[in-house]
Amino acid sequence: MMGKQKQQNVDIALLHHPVLGRKGEIIGSAVTNLDLHDIARTARTYGIGNYFVVTPYEDQQKLVDEILEHWCGGHGSTYNPARKEAFSLVKLANSLDEVIELTTKNQTSPVLVTTSAKNQAGSISYEESRARIARGEQTLLVFGTAHGLAPEITARADYTLPAITGPTDYNHLSVRAAVAIICDRLLR
Amino acid sequence: MMGKQKQQNVDIALLHHPVLGRKGEIIGSAVTNLDLHDIARTARTYGIGNYFVVTPYEDQQKLVDEILEHWCGGHGSTYNPARKEAFSLVKLANSLDEVIELTTKNQTSPVLVTTSAKNQAGSISYEESRARIARGEQTLLVFGTAHGLAPEITARADYTLPAITGPTDYNHLSVRAAVAIICDRLLR
Repeated sequence: MMGKQKQQNVDIALLHHPVLGRKGEIIGSAVTNLDLHDIARTARTYGIGNYFVVTPYEDQQKLVDEILEHWCGGHGSTYNPARKEAFSLVKLANSLDEVIELTTKNQTSPVLVTTSAKNQAGSISYEESRARIARGEQTLLVFGTAHGLAPEITARADYTLPAITGPTDYNHLSVRAAVAIICDRLLR
Repeated sequence: MMGKQKQQNVDIALLHHPVLGRKGEIIGSAVTNLDLHDIARTARTYGIGNYFVVTPYEDQQKLVDEILEHWCGGHGSTYNPARKEAFSLVKLANSLDEVIELTTKNQTSPVLVTTSAKNQAGSISYEESRARIARGEQTLLVFGTAHGLAPEITARADYTLPAITGPTDYNHLSVRAAVAIICDRLLR
Protein backbone atom coordinates (compact mmCIF):
# COMPACT_ATOMS: atom_id res chain seq x y z
CA MET A 1 0.00 0.00 0.00
CA MET A 2 1.34 3.39 -0.92
CA GLY A 3 1.14 6.41 1.35
CA LYS A 4 0.00 9.60 -0.37
CA GLN A 5 3.47 11.12 -0.02
CA LYS A 6 5.41 8.03 -1.03
CA GLN A 7 8.82 8.97 -2.39
CA GLN A 8 9.69 6.92 -5.44
CA ASN A 9 13.32 5.90 -5.76
CA VAL A 10 13.39 7.64 -9.15
CA ASP A 11 15.14 10.75 -10.44
CA ILE A 12 14.76 12.52 -13.78
CA ALA A 13 17.48 14.13 -15.89
CA LEU A 14 16.68 16.45 -18.81
CA LEU A 15 19.73 16.74 -21.06
CA HIS A 16 20.51 19.85 -23.12
CA HIS A 17 23.88 18.45 -24.22
CA PRO A 18 24.83 16.20 -25.96
CA VAL A 19 21.59 15.99 -27.95
CA LEU A 20 20.72 15.68 -31.64
CA GLY A 21 19.99 18.57 -34.01
CA ARG A 22 17.70 18.59 -37.03
CA LYS A 23 20.24 16.80 -39.20
CA GLY A 24 21.37 14.30 -36.58
CA GLU A 25 24.40 16.38 -35.59
CA ILE A 26 25.45 16.72 -31.93
CA ILE A 27 24.34 20.04 -30.46
CA GLY A 28 23.64 21.77 -27.18
CA SER A 29 20.11 23.18 -26.82
CA ALA A 30 18.82 26.17 -24.88
CA VAL A 31 16.89 25.73 -21.65
CA THR A 32 13.14 26.30 -22.08
CA ASN A 33 11.36 28.00 -19.21
CA LEU A 34 8.27 25.84 -19.55
CA ASP A 35 10.36 22.63 -19.43
CA LEU A 36 11.32 23.68 -15.92
CA HIS A 37 7.74 24.41 -14.85
CA ASP A 38 5.90 21.54 -16.50
CA ILE A 39 8.38 18.80 -15.71
CA ALA A 40 8.85 19.99 -12.11
CA ARG A 41 5.06 19.85 -11.62
CA THR A 42 4.86 16.38 -13.19
CA ALA A 43 7.83 15.20 -11.10
CA ARG A 44 6.24 16.48 -7.90
CA THR A 45 2.92 14.81 -8.78
CA TYR A 46 4.55 11.42 -9.34
CA GLY A 47 6.88 11.44 -6.33
CA ILE A 48 10.16 11.89 -8.25
CA GLY A 49 13.15 12.60 -5.97
CA ASN A 50 15.17 15.10 -8.02
CA TYR A 51 14.68 16.67 -11.42
CA PHE A 52 18.15 17.43 -12.85
CA VAL A 53 18.37 20.10 -15.51
CA VAL A 54 21.61 19.25 -17.31
CA THR A 55 23.53 21.89 -19.24
CA PRO A 56 27.25 22.65 -19.45
CA TYR A 57 26.62 26.28 -20.48
CA GLU A 58 27.21 28.91 -17.83
CA ASP A 59 24.71 31.42 -19.23
CA GLN A 60 22.03 28.73 -19.27
CA GLN A 61 22.87 27.69 -15.72
CA LYS A 62 22.57 31.32 -14.67
CA LEU A 63 19.12 31.52 -16.29
CA VAL A 64 17.97 28.38 -14.45
CA ASP A 65 19.35 29.77 -11.18
CA GLU A 66 17.39 32.99 -11.65
CA ILE A 67 14.15 31.14 -12.36
CA LEU A 68 14.70 28.88 -9.33
CA GLU A 69 15.47 31.87 -7.12
CA HIS A 70 12.24 33.59 -8.21
CA TRP A 71 10.04 30.59 -7.48
CA CYS A 72 11.84 29.15 -4.45
CA GLY A 73 12.94 32.28 -2.61
CA GLY A 74 11.60 35.34 -4.41
CA HIS A 75 8.17 36.76 -5.10
CA GLY A 76 7.00 33.57 -6.81
CA SER A 77 7.41 31.51 -3.65
CA THR A 78 4.73 33.46 -1.80
CA TYR A 79 2.58 34.12 -4.87
CA ASN A 80 2.42 30.41 -5.74
CA PRO A 81 3.52 28.02 -2.95
CA ALA A 82 2.53 24.97 -5.02
CA ARG A 83 5.00 26.02 -7.70
CA LYS A 84 7.69 26.47 -5.05
CA GLU A 85 7.04 22.93 -3.91
CA ALA A 86 7.57 21.65 -7.46
CA PHE A 87 10.67 23.77 -8.06
CA SER A 88 12.27 22.47 -4.87
CA LEU A 89 12.97 19.24 -6.81
CA VAL A 90 14.96 21.02 -9.54
CA LYS A 91 18.76 20.73 -9.44
CA LEU A 92 21.36 21.96 -11.91
CA ALA A 93 24.08 19.67 -13.25
CA ASN A 94 26.87 20.06 -15.81
CA SER A 95 26.67 16.60 -17.29
CA LEU A 96 25.12 13.16 -17.00
CA ASP A 97 28.29 12.07 -15.20
CA GLU A 98 27.68 14.69 -12.54
CA VAL A 99 24.06 13.51 -12.15
CA ILE A 100 25.24 9.93 -11.68
CA GLU A 101 27.81 11.08 -9.12
CA LEU A 102 25.15 13.03 -7.22
CA THR A 103 22.72 10.10 -7.18
CA THR A 104 25.18 7.33 -6.34
CA LYS A 105 24.38 5.89 -2.92
CA ASN A 106 26.65 3.49 -1.01
CA GLN A 107 28.87 3.25 -4.08
CA THR A 108 25.95 1.99 -6.17
CA SER A 109 25.02 4.12 -9.16
CA PRO A 110 21.38 4.28 -10.31
CA VAL A 111 19.97 2.12 -13.09
CA LEU A 112 20.28 4.33 -16.16
CA VAL A 113 17.10 4.35 -18.28
CA THR A 114 16.99 6.29 -21.54
CA THR A 115 13.97 7.38 -23.57
CA SER A 116 13.55 8.07 -27.26
CA ALA A 117 10.90 8.88 -29.86
CA LYS A 118 12.36 6.01 -31.90
CA ASN A 119 12.60 2.44 -30.64
CA GLN A 120 16.14 1.55 -29.60
CA ALA A 121 17.95 -1.73 -29.00
CA GLY A 122 17.82 -2.95 -25.39
CA SER A 123 14.31 -1.78 -24.59
CA ILE A 124 12.09 -3.46 -22.03
CA SER A 125 8.32 -3.02 -21.71
CA TYR A 126 6.73 -0.33 -19.53
CA GLU A 127 5.20 -3.09 -17.40
CA GLU A 128 8.62 -4.59 -16.72
CA SER A 129 10.14 -1.20 -15.94
CA ARG A 130 7.21 -0.42 -13.64
CA ALA A 131 7.76 -3.67 -11.76
CA ARG A 132 11.49 -3.00 -11.34
CA ILE A 133 10.77 0.48 -9.96
CA ALA A 134 8.06 -0.89 -7.66
CA ARG A 135 10.64 -3.30 -6.22
CA GLY A 136 12.61 -0.22 -5.16
CA GLU A 137 15.32 -0.28 -7.85
CA GLN A 138 16.99 3.13 -7.83
CA THR A 139 16.35 4.54 -11.29
CA LEU A 140 17.49 7.56 -13.29
CA LEU A 141 15.15 8.39 -16.20
CA VAL A 142 17.02 10.34 -18.89
CA PHE A 143 15.21 12.55 -21.41
CA GLY A 144 16.69 14.54 -24.30
CA THR A 145 15.71 17.95 -25.61
CA ALA A 146 15.89 19.02 -29.30
CA HIS A 147 15.81 15.87 -31.50
CA GLY A 148 16.68 13.49 -28.70
CA LEU A 149 19.61 12.02 -26.79
CA ALA A 150 22.97 11.60 -28.52
CA PRO A 151 23.95 7.95 -29.25
CA GLU A 152 26.81 8.22 -26.74
CA ILE A 153 24.18 8.69 -23.99
CA THR A 154 21.84 5.95 -25.20
CA ALA A 155 24.81 3.56 -25.41
CA ARG A 156 25.34 3.93 -21.66
CA ALA A 157 21.78 2.89 -20.72
CA ASP A 158 21.10 -0.14 -18.56
CA TYR A 159 17.87 -0.33 -20.51
CA THR A 160 15.74 1.89 -22.73
CA LEU A 161 11.99 2.43 -22.81
CA PRO A 162 9.97 1.88 -26.00
CA ALA A 163 8.93 4.97 -27.96
CA ILE A 164 5.52 6.29 -26.93
CA THR A 165 3.00 5.61 -29.64
CA GLY A 166 -0.67 6.28 -29.88
CA PRO A 167 -2.92 4.71 -32.51
CA THR A 168 -1.09 6.70 -35.23
CA ASP A 169 2.49 6.68 -36.53
CA TYR A 170 3.11 10.32 -35.53
CA ASN A 171 6.02 10.41 -33.07
CA HIS A 172 6.61 14.10 -32.36
CA LEU A 173 5.41 14.59 -28.80
CA SER A 174 6.92 17.44 -26.81
CA VAL A 175 9.40 16.35 -24.16
CA ARG A 176 6.99 17.84 -21.59
CA ALA A 177 4.22 15.49 -22.79
CA ALA A 178 6.60 12.52 -23.01
CA VAL A 179 7.77 12.97 -19.41
CA ALA A 180 4.15 13.21 -18.24
CA ILE A 181 3.08 10.06 -20.06
CA ILE A 182 6.12 8.03 -18.98
CA CYS A 183 5.73 9.05 -15.33
CA ASP A 184 2.06 8.07 -15.50
CA ARG A 185 2.85 4.69 -17.06
CA LEU A 186 5.64 3.86 -14.60
CA LEU A 187 4.58 5.50 -11.34
CA ARG A 188 0.82 6.01 -11.10
CA MET B 1 -7.20 -4.27 -34.74
CA MET B 2 -6.19 -0.68 -35.17
CA GLY B 3 -4.51 0.70 -38.26
CA LYS B 4 -1.62 3.01 -37.59
CA GLN B 5 -3.60 6.02 -38.79
CA LYS B 6 -6.85 5.16 -37.03
CA GLN B 7 -8.96 8.23 -36.46
CA GLN B 8 -10.53 8.21 -33.02
CA ASN B 9 -14.05 9.61 -32.75
CA VAL B 10 -12.75 12.08 -30.19
CA ASP B 11 -12.25 15.86 -30.22
CA ILE B 12 -10.57 18.09 -27.64
CA ALA B 13 -11.63 21.56 -26.50
CA LEU B 14 -9.34 23.83 -24.47
CA LEU B 15 -11.40 26.54 -22.80
CA HIS B 16 -10.05 30.01 -21.99
CA HIS B 17 -13.46 31.23 -20.84
CA PRO B 18 -15.36 30.68 -18.57
CA VAL B 19 -12.62 29.36 -16.28
CA LEU B 20 -11.66 29.88 -12.64
CA GLY B 21 -9.14 32.40 -11.33
CA ARG B 22 -6.93 32.11 -8.26
CA LYS B 23 -9.76 32.95 -5.90
CA GLY B 24 -12.42 30.88 -7.61
CA GLU B 25 -13.82 33.82 -9.57
CA ILE B 26 -14.88 33.44 -13.21
CA ILE B 27 -12.25 34.78 -15.59
CA GLY B 28 -11.07 34.59 -19.18
CA SER B 29 -7.44 33.52 -19.61
CA ALA B 30 -4.89 34.38 -22.29
CA VAL B 31 -3.93 31.85 -24.96
CA THR B 32 -0.49 30.30 -24.32
CA ASN B 33 1.62 29.60 -27.39
CA LEU B 34 2.94 26.34 -26.00
CA ASP B 35 -0.58 25.08 -25.27
CA LEU B 36 -1.17 25.22 -29.00
CA HIS B 37 2.05 23.38 -29.86
CA ASP B 38 2.09 20.73 -27.15
CA ILE B 39 -1.58 19.83 -27.24
CA ALA B 40 -1.67 19.77 -31.06
CA ARG B 41 1.28 17.34 -31.06
CA THR B 42 -0.36 15.15 -28.41
CA ALA B 43 -3.68 15.26 -30.29
CA ARG B 44 -2.01 14.22 -33.55
CA THR B 45 -0.16 11.38 -31.78
CA TYR B 46 -3.36 9.95 -30.29
CA GLY B 47 -5.57 10.29 -33.38
CA ILE B 48 -7.77 13.13 -32.09
CA GLY B 49 -10.06 14.61 -34.79
CA ASN B 50 -10.06 18.32 -33.93
CA TYR B 51 -8.39 20.38 -31.23
CA PHE B 52 -10.62 23.39 -30.55
CA VAL B 53 -9.01 26.42 -28.96
CA VAL B 54 -11.93 28.22 -27.35
CA THR B 55 -11.79 31.95 -26.64
CA PRO B 56 -14.35 34.72 -27.12
CA TYR B 57 -11.66 37.44 -27.28
CA GLU B 58 -10.92 38.85 -30.72
CA ASP B 59 -7.30 39.79 -29.97
CA GLN B 60 -6.64 36.24 -28.73
CA GLN B 61 -8.32 34.75 -31.81
CA LYS B 62 -6.11 36.94 -33.99
CA LEU B 63 -3.02 35.67 -32.15
CA VAL B 64 -4.06 32.05 -32.70
CA ASP B 65 -4.74 32.78 -36.37
CA GLU B 66 -1.27 34.24 -36.80
CA ILE B 67 0.39 31.24 -35.15
CA LEU B 68 -1.66 28.85 -37.29
CA GLU B 69 -0.83 30.78 -40.44
CA HIS B 70 2.90 30.61 -39.64
CA TRP B 71 2.90 26.85 -39.07
CA CYS B 72 0.28 25.79 -41.62
CA GLY B 73 0.99 28.13 -44.51
CA GLY B 74 4.01 30.27 -43.72
CA HIS B 75 7.71 29.62 -43.17
CA GLY B 76 7.04 27.15 -40.36
CA SER B 77 5.17 24.78 -42.67
CA THR B 78 8.25 24.08 -44.77
CA TYR B 79 10.73 24.38 -41.89
CA ASN B 80 8.83 21.81 -39.82
CA PRO B 81 6.25 19.71 -41.74
CA ALA B 82 5.55 17.54 -38.67
CA ARG B 83 4.44 20.63 -36.78
CA LYS B 84 2.21 21.61 -39.71
CA GLU B 85 0.59 18.19 -39.51
CA ALA B 86 -0.18 18.73 -35.82
CA PHE B 87 -1.43 22.29 -36.31
CA SER B 88 -3.82 21.14 -39.04
CA LEU B 89 -6.03 19.77 -36.21
CA VAL B 90 -6.33 23.17 -34.49
CA LYS B 91 -9.61 25.07 -34.89
CA LEU B 92 -10.77 28.30 -33.29
CA ALA B 93 -14.16 28.59 -31.56
CA ASN B 94 -15.92 31.33 -29.60
CA SER B 95 -17.56 29.11 -27.04
CA LEU B 96 -18.29 25.55 -25.97
CA ASP B 97 -21.68 25.93 -27.65
CA GLU B 98 -19.98 26.64 -30.94
CA VAL B 99 -17.75 23.58 -30.52
CA ILE B 100 -20.80 21.41 -29.88
CA GLU B 101 -22.52 22.87 -32.94
CA LEU B 102 -19.45 22.18 -35.09
CA THR B 103 -19.15 18.59 -33.87
CA THR B 104 -22.82 17.62 -33.99
CA LYS B 105 -23.35 14.93 -36.62
CA ASN B 106 -26.76 13.76 -37.83
CA GLN B 107 -28.38 15.91 -35.13
CA THR B 108 -26.48 14.00 -32.43
CA SER B 109 -24.21 16.07 -30.25
CA PRO B 110 -21.02 14.51 -28.84
CA VAL B 111 -20.79 13.02 -25.36
CA LEU B 112 -19.45 15.89 -23.25
CA VAL B 113 -16.63 14.82 -20.93
CA THR B 114 -15.07 17.29 -18.52
CA THR B 115 -11.78 17.09 -16.66
CA SER B 116 -10.63 18.58 -13.38
CA ALA B 117 -7.73 18.56 -10.95
CA LYS B 118 -10.32 17.93 -8.23
CA ASN B 119 -12.68 14.98 -8.21
CA GLN B 120 -16.20 15.97 -9.29
CA ALA B 121 -19.58 14.32 -8.95
CA GLY B 122 -20.57 12.12 -11.88
CA SER B 123 -17.14 10.73 -12.64
CA ILE B 124 -16.57 7.35 -14.24
CA SER B 125 -13.27 5.44 -14.29
CA TYR B 126 -10.69 5.82 -17.04
CA GLU B 127 -11.25 2.15 -17.95
CA GLU B 128 -14.97 2.74 -18.47
CA SER B 129 -14.36 5.89 -20.49
CA ARG B 130 -11.78 4.05 -22.56
CA ALA B 131 -14.28 1.29 -23.30
CA ARG B 132 -16.98 3.76 -24.34
CA ILE B 133 -14.59 5.50 -26.72
CA ALA B 134 -13.39 2.17 -28.09
CA ARG B 135 -17.02 1.32 -28.92
CA GLY B 136 -17.00 4.40 -31.17
CA GLU B 137 -18.94 6.80 -28.94
CA GLN B 138 -18.37 10.32 -30.28
CA THR B 139 -16.67 12.17 -27.45
CA LEU B 140 -15.66 15.76 -26.72
CA LEU B 141 -12.97 16.03 -24.03
CA VAL B 142 -13.08 19.46 -22.37
CA PHE B 143 -10.07 20.94 -20.56
CA GLY B 144 -9.84 24.23 -18.68
CA THR B 145 -6.95 26.69 -18.49
CA ALA B 146 -6.08 28.83 -15.42
CA HIS B 147 -7.56 27.17 -12.29
CA GLY B 148 -9.95 24.92 -14.19
CA LEU B 149 -13.38 24.85 -15.81
CA ALA B 150 -16.16 27.02 -14.44
CA PRO B 151 -18.94 25.10 -12.64
CA GLU B 152 -21.41 26.08 -15.37
CA ILE B 153 -19.30 24.01 -17.82
CA THR B 154 -18.80 21.04 -15.51
CA ALA B 155 -22.57 21.01 -14.85
CA ARG B 156 -23.20 20.31 -18.53
CA ALA B 157 -20.99 17.19 -18.67
CA ASP B 158 -22.40 13.80 -19.59
CA TYR B 159 -19.67 12.47 -17.36
CA THR B 160 -16.44 13.68 -15.79
CA LEU B 161 -13.06 11.99 -15.48
CA PRO B 162 -11.37 11.50 -12.10
CA ALA B 163 -8.56 13.89 -11.19
CA ILE B 164 -5.15 12.58 -12.22
CA THR B 165 -3.19 11.54 -9.19
CA GLY B 166 0.21 10.03 -8.79
CA PRO B 167 1.45 8.47 -5.56
CA THR B 168 1.40 11.92 -3.86
CA ASP B 169 -1.39 14.37 -3.05
CA TYR B 170 0.07 17.13 -5.26
CA ASN B 171 -2.53 18.04 -7.90
CA HIS B 172 -0.98 20.89 -9.89
CA LEU B 173 -0.13 19.37 -13.25
CA SER B 174 0.05 21.71 -16.24
CA VAL B 175 -2.88 21.40 -18.63
CA ARG B 176 -0.35 20.28 -21.27
CA ALA B 177 0.70 17.35 -19.05
CA ALA B 178 -2.91 16.55 -18.11
CA VAL B 179 -3.99 16.35 -21.76
CA ALA B 180 -1.03 14.07 -22.55
CA ILE B 181 -1.76 11.71 -19.66
CA ILE B 182 -5.51 11.56 -20.32
CA CYS B 183 -5.02 10.87 -24.04
CA ASP B 184 -2.57 8.11 -23.14
CA ARG B 185 -4.96 6.55 -20.64
CA LEU B 186 -7.97 6.68 -22.96
CA LEU B 187 -6.54 6.21 -26.43
CA ARG B 188 -3.21 4.40 -26.42
